[in-house]
Amino acid sequence: MGVVISLKEGTDRQASVKPLVELTKGDMERVNQLILSRAGSDVQMIPEVANHLISSGGKRLRPMLTLASATMCGYEGEGHIRLATSVEFMHTATLLHDDVVDESDMRRGKSTARMIWGNQASVLVGDFLLGQAFKMMVEVGSMDALDVLSTAASVIAEGEVLQLSIAKNMETTEDDYLAVIRAKTAALFSAACEVGPIVAGKGKAERNALKSYGTNLGLAFQLIDDVLDYGGSAKDLGKNVGDDFREGKITLPVVLAFRRGTAQEREFWREAIEEGRNDDAALEKAMALITKHDCLPDTIARAEHYGSIARDALAPLPDSPEKDAMLEVIAFCLHRAN
Amino acid sequence: MGVVISLKEGTDRQASVKPLVELTKGDMERVNQLILSRAGSDVQMIPEVANHLISSGGKRLRPMLTLASATMCGYEGEGHIRLATSVEFMHTATLLHDDVVDESDMRRGKSTARMIWGNQASVLVGDFLLGQAFKMMVEVGSMDALDVLSTAASVIAEGEVLQLSIAKNMETTEDDYLAVIRAKTAALFSAACEVGPIVAGKGKAERNALKSYGTNLGLAFQLIDDVLDYGGSAKDLGKNVGDDFREGKITLPVVLAFRRGTAQEREFWREAIEEGRNDDAALEKAMALITKHDCLPDTIARAEHYGSIARDALAPLPDSPEKDAMLEVIAFCLHRAN
Repeated sequence: MGVVISLKEGTDRQASVKPLVELTKGDMERVNQLILSRAGSDVQMIPEVANHLISSGGKRLRPMLTLASATMCGYEGEGHIRLATSVEFMHTATLLHDDVVDESDMRRGKSTARMIWGNQASVLVGDFLLGQAFKMMVEVGSMDALDVLSTAASVIAEGEVLQLSIAKNMETTEDDYLAVIRAKTAALFSAACEVGPIVAGKGKAERNALKSYGTNLGLAFQLIDDVLDYGGSAKDLGKNVGDDFREGKITLPVVLAFRRGTAQEREFWREAIEEGRNDDAALEKAMALITKHDCLPDTIARAEHYGSIARDALAPLPDSPEKDAMLEVIAFCLHRAN
Repeated sequence: MGVVISLKEGTDRQASVKPLVELTKGDMERVNQLILSRAGSDVQMIPEVANHLISSGGKRLRPMLTLASATMCGYEGEGHIRLATSVEFMHTATLLHDDVVDESDMRRGKSTARMIWGNQASVLVGDFLLGQAFKMMVEVGSMDALDVLSTAASVIAEGEVLQLSIAKNMETTEDDYLAVIRAKTAALFSAACEVGPIVAGKGKAERNALKSYGTNLGLAFQLIDDVLDYGGSAKDLGKNVGDDFREGKITLPVVLAFRRGTAQEREFWREAIEEGRNDDAALEKAMALITKHDCLPDTIARAEHYGSIARDALAPLPDSPEKDAMLEVIAFCLHRAN
């Protein structure tokens, strides 16, 4: 099931992550090598658990953004490979811990690590990957990059706890929700992009531009992800439609449907989200209410707002193939919902 | 119930952590302040969970070792306060994750955070504290200290996974077990001591001396902890006698009892540890077998071996009140079993 959205330009519909993939291909091969070697350990369970998730076909958007940010800033050294790998490890560690926290069974169309090796291994292998990420940052030797990425690590965890504390609470406002995704998703996108100009030795202007691009791309990305949970197909998502609903997770489509609903509808949402009456019939009703109140196209409109900020953030930087590819990534993220 | 052990010097029996506490008192007040402020967050659940564990009366031996190591190396700056706090946060994060991994109900005589706020909060607040630890290290600005502590973070997690993979397996050798405690316990003691000379700008000799002291003190500390689990009182330990046994955890007293036992006794250990027949009657029998084969005094003898290495490691360093206090800590750790 797709969602019809308005497009400013017809060409955006064909927007693709391919140019970014092509530009970073050589570097990403080295990142992938480093991922495999740094997820290695004499303790056999570590590479088993790590590779299960690492090889499950994530897009690796974050490390590609680090590589492209460094290259567009004229970087010609080796440090961006390690930083990109650190970023992917931080992301992987978060996913391992998230699956424990959310008690998730599936991720990217496969059983989660915790279903195969248990919560214990997921927690500890996540900790190991986080440690390896910091070791690689230290090897690069940039205190500024360490600052940005260690701050991101704190902020991400803070965002996850915030999400936990507002979970199953229908009083959650759009602002509360934004604070969560700004921390749990946008902070890593932001850091992934900001370490590019840092390792390239660029100044405040480039750092701020790429930081703002990353933050706003991350917000748009997460909002579209939330739309897809009510409108995509499990095959594309690697997860099941309605997972967020069944987990009682409050995302923007639900915040909007609740706020725009009748008293009776709000009662339905409270029972579904707060009290866990979230069977298939409830999911069907939820989707009908979300459609009735235009919550998916309006969530996409919010995502487009952040996409525009991301686009303008990059504008002052000199033209380059990397800049073009990163602009196209914005359109790609927004139009995943088609 | 106490354990009788041989003492080389009568005065060791009075060995105390007090001189170390006295010497680091002023700095520890600042560490404690920093612990409170850096465990703070607008997300209310974070300080709640963090302070539950932080205020539960741990000895804070690790940060005191960092402070004393820096001071004995002539350091007069401010960085050791942040490094000591980072070390304590890394320790606290490990405890939060450990309790989830071990499904523990009690720690230091209180309910564990996971029993009050759930596994989810324990995982995420642990992640937050780890992020804050790295932020503080970055603030200190020593790449060598970051290197030592980030390596420790990886090694600790690796040790925890190793422990998981040998859990409930009676084939575990003393060497396997040593590899686990070297990683999960000794690595942080080692790093806590090594960052002292690093921040003080000292060379390889001081770093190696304090690193070796920390490693071997950590091994001795953990071995005595394992002894206490079969011989201490719950009041002193803040945990219950036999916790390790009930969790099917393999520690050196069990490794020795199994190896020294008859075929029939080995069968008992397999049933108890591998198959979970670990009720009160089984615990009583386990303790009888451990006594029969002298496993507690012999584990203490192993701990004394590492204590001697720690003592010799410090010998070449110039005399100072800190050195004396740190030597006394070795004796204190060894004689906790009395």
